[in-house]
Amino acid sequence: MQYGYFDDAAKEYVITHPDTPLSWSNYLGTTHYGAIITNNAGGYSFYKSGAQGRFLRLRFNSIPMDQPGRYFYLRDQESGDYWSVSWQPVGKPLEQFKSTCRHGTAYTIISSEYNGIHAEATYFVPLEQIFEYCRLKVTNTSDRPRQLSAFTYCEFTNDWNTAQDLVNLQYTLFIINGSLRNGLLSVENGVHMPLDPHGNVDKDWSRRVWMALYGAPLAGYDTSRAAFLGSYRSYDRPWVVEQGQCTNSNVYGDNACGTLQANLALQPGESREILVMLGIGDSELVGQRTAAEFGSLERSSEEFEKLKASWHAKLDSLVVETPDPQFNSMMNVWAPYNALMTFAWSRAASLVYNGERDGLGYRDSVQDVLGVTASIPKEVRERLKLMLTGQVSTGGAMPLIKPFNHRPGQETPPAAEDYRSDDCLWLFNAIPAYVAETGDADFYNQVLPYADKG
Amino acid sequence: MQYGYFDDAAKEYVITHPDTPLSWSNYLGTTHYGAIITNNAGGYSFYKSGAQGRFLRLRFNSIPMDQPGRYFYLRDQESGDYWSVSWQPVGKPLEQFKSTCRHGTAYTIISSEYNGIHAEATYFVPLEQIFEYCRLKVTNTSDRPRQLSAFTYCEFTNDWNTAQDLVNLQYTLFIINGSLRNGLLSVENGVHMPLDPHGNVDKDWSRRVWMALYGAPLAGYDTSRAAFLGSYRSYDRPWVVEQGQCTNSNVYGDNACGTLQANLALQPGESREILVMLGIGDSELVGQRTAAEFGSLERSSEEFEKLKASWHAKLDSLVVETPDPQFNSMMNVWAPYNALMTFAWSRAASLVYNGERDGLGYRDSVQDVLGVTASIPKEVRERLKLMLTGQVSTGGAMPLIKPFNHRPGQETPPAAEDYRSDDCLWLFNAIPAYVAETGDADFYNQVLPYADKG
Repeated sequence: MQYGYFDDAAKEYVITHPDTPLSWSNYLGTTHYGAIITNNAGGYSFYKSGAQGRFLRLRFNSIPMDQPGRYFYLRDQESGDYWSVSWQPVGKPLEQFKSTCRHGTAYTIISSEYNGIHAEATYFVPLEQIFEYCRLKVTNTSDRPRQLSAFTYCEFTNDWNTAQDLVNLQYTLFIINGSLRNGLLSVENGVHMPLDPHGNVDKDWSRRVWMALYGAPLAGYDTSRAAFLGSYRSYDRPWVVEQGQCTNSNVYGDNACGTLQANLALQPGESREILVMLGIGDSELVGQRTAAEFGSLERSSEEFEKLKASWHAKLDSLVVETPDPQFNSMMNVWAPYNALMTFAWSRAASLVYNGERDGLGYRDSVQDVLGVTASIPKEVRERLKLMLTGQVSTGGAMPLIKPFNHRPGQETPPAAEDYRSDDCLWLFNAIPAYVAETGDADFYNQVLPYADKG
Repeated sequence: MQYGYFDDAAKEYVITHPDTPLSWSNYLGTTHYGAIITNNAGGYSFYKSGAQGRFLRLRFNSIPMDQPGRYFYLRDQESGDYWSVSWQPVGKPLEQFKSTCRHGTAYTIISSEYNGIHAEATYFVPLEQIFEYCRLKVTNTSDRPRQLSAFTYCEFTNDWNTAQDLVNLQYTLFIINGSLRNGLLSVENGVHMPLDPHGNVDKDWSRRVWMALYGAPLAGYDTSRAAFLGSYRSYDRPWVVEQGQCTNSNVYGDNACGTLQANLALQPGESREILVMLGIGDSELVGQRTAAEFGSLERSSEEFEKLKASWHAKLDSLVVETPDPQFNSMMNVWAPYNALMTFAWSRAASLVYNGERDGLGYRDSVQDVLGVTASIPKEVRERLKLMLTGQVSTGGAMPLIKPFNHRPGQETPPAAEDYRSDDCLWLFNAIPAYVAETGDADFYNQVLPYADKG
């Protein structure tokens, strides 16, 4: 079966059948603010570390696969019928429900056509920001006025340490708080502990996220997963969506979700857009400021264009034109895009690699520079310097470099049995490749500390 | 709302409304072969250690709660309608579906009444065995002949180390095998590694489970979760049950399930019983022998009576008769039953404690003997000896004793900061209580090794 095609002009892969055998995922942001999204809007987000900075929850290897994620539910307030903009989780019959997913360069657009309503959700992390945009455009393609409500759903971890969140339930089921504070949804764990604005490694800190809605008045909210979904229900038929109205739940313990409701009245042919922001940090200290600056459809459009321009510029470092369109697709978009993503994310997180590894594998990461020296030479230079400072003075290397808290010269060397004998060998490939590409022969004159000694 | 009542004569708690706000669970077996089961048949099983011996999978804190478990699906092969004997996971409307759960002394009976069919599932681990019985009785209470099929479902871990099973998907999604071997369902991980018949701690061994069906011919089987459930489906509407026929799938990688199909033709008023066994060990080496000895309705009935007699004898060590029936319920059944379960399981596993702790907490476990010295003095004596050998020669104690591989005299003492200052104090309560109850003053004359020295 043919599930999709390459759209080279847009530099997107287009999935036209949402019932792929397994989820097809894309990467948003960077590992500073990293987000995974599937063609059915499943996925998760983390700050700096998949292991210790996980704030949006995905259940791996679960049933149905790759839930939850970042959902928009739509409800026809006249008929009571509801669906999700992505085919899953509601899963309307595919004879009546059309869905397209466009995985682009660090953004994903999922659209649906159902019952006279066209909807399109755009997901991305703006360059250098620690929040994500989820933008929804709804169009009435029927010939009568429509009363719709849109509901967002995402599920927060109770503990940003993903292992704790999975396992230590006697603690983590009792630490989450959610409420609406000055117009922003605020979800906080360990609220009685001090706020740590910069770190994410020490555990005894309060961790916070915020959400905002623009483009329509806030018609209701929920922060309690139990209130939103109801007992003995799943993401396919949430209680609140079935009922058509949020309960304004302020969760205290158990599990938290992010639900904002917008009511949209649409004349035939009319379109409406709403914008959802989800970011990390305290809603008062960080959320209000960020929302004031970025909380508009116009600004999100600008950020979207900036993001695309930045990525497309990287891809334009090499363009081939051959008689084979599939070869062109691979060479001009997908091989470099994947090489860039691999460089950026290493094996930090995916749908199989659940992110607990928490750092750059030494050999893999040195190898990863080989595919991207032409497109991002500056980043390659910095990465090579980082990896060189991961060598220890005995000649071996740290098996894993954690960029967010690597301390050259002060690391404890690994046990002898943790060295890989080929750790250092990859530098003999990667550094000459970088110098050959850039002419930066001066790179060889640097003096850098070992991991364990100055 | 009243969800149930105490049946003191049967020593059971009876749940008459299956939609309890949270799952109400029971414990089957011991921590040698431990099984948790909820009033909706959710739950998991482990061998010796919840952390390293987990072979039946439950997803904690998931949606819908506490799935999967040990399900019987029933399908009317004429109408195509299907349901589960426990209300969940299919979740038929409660106006049409009646369900009762009886949590007894290390057994649970779940029955349902739906569409002219009465069904009753009995779950228990026979005394001192390393398998569990799931027995199903189906009665046609309608006035016409019925063609039914019954399907079992349970889900196996890919890795008996529960953390690996959750997290290390790049490995564990590729190691499971399932097939039918000489009439027994056989599910094996690491099949190319050596078989370890006794241990469960070292990871590089093949781990194996088997299942058997008695009371009806095997009409089909599935070992592939994907084949049984289908894509984008959950336990509420498995593909195979919807279709009415197993696919005889032999899983190789991905995830394994245990599905056995029995076809049951029932005249009005007729009852049929089937017996399912689920055990650990190689199907040829252990399963065939165990199934030959225990694989009959008669034997399972004998084992059920033995189990009840054993537990009821323990509870009979103290019987009170007061004018307050609720006080009588507590004193005669539920307080001692829970004290005995707490003694046996410590905090090894529950629905909140997911079992990764993997041993007996020192202080808790010494305290736990206080409630059961009268009912099981021999076990208390052994436990106290075990805990005494958990003291280290400095006077502190190991924070956690792992009965399955504790080596008195040879343990590495914990770091100084891991001691609890009151570790040894609880022995001054527990040992005199034991001696006062039993008169076993000779207990004081024993010479036992410290944890770290002979």
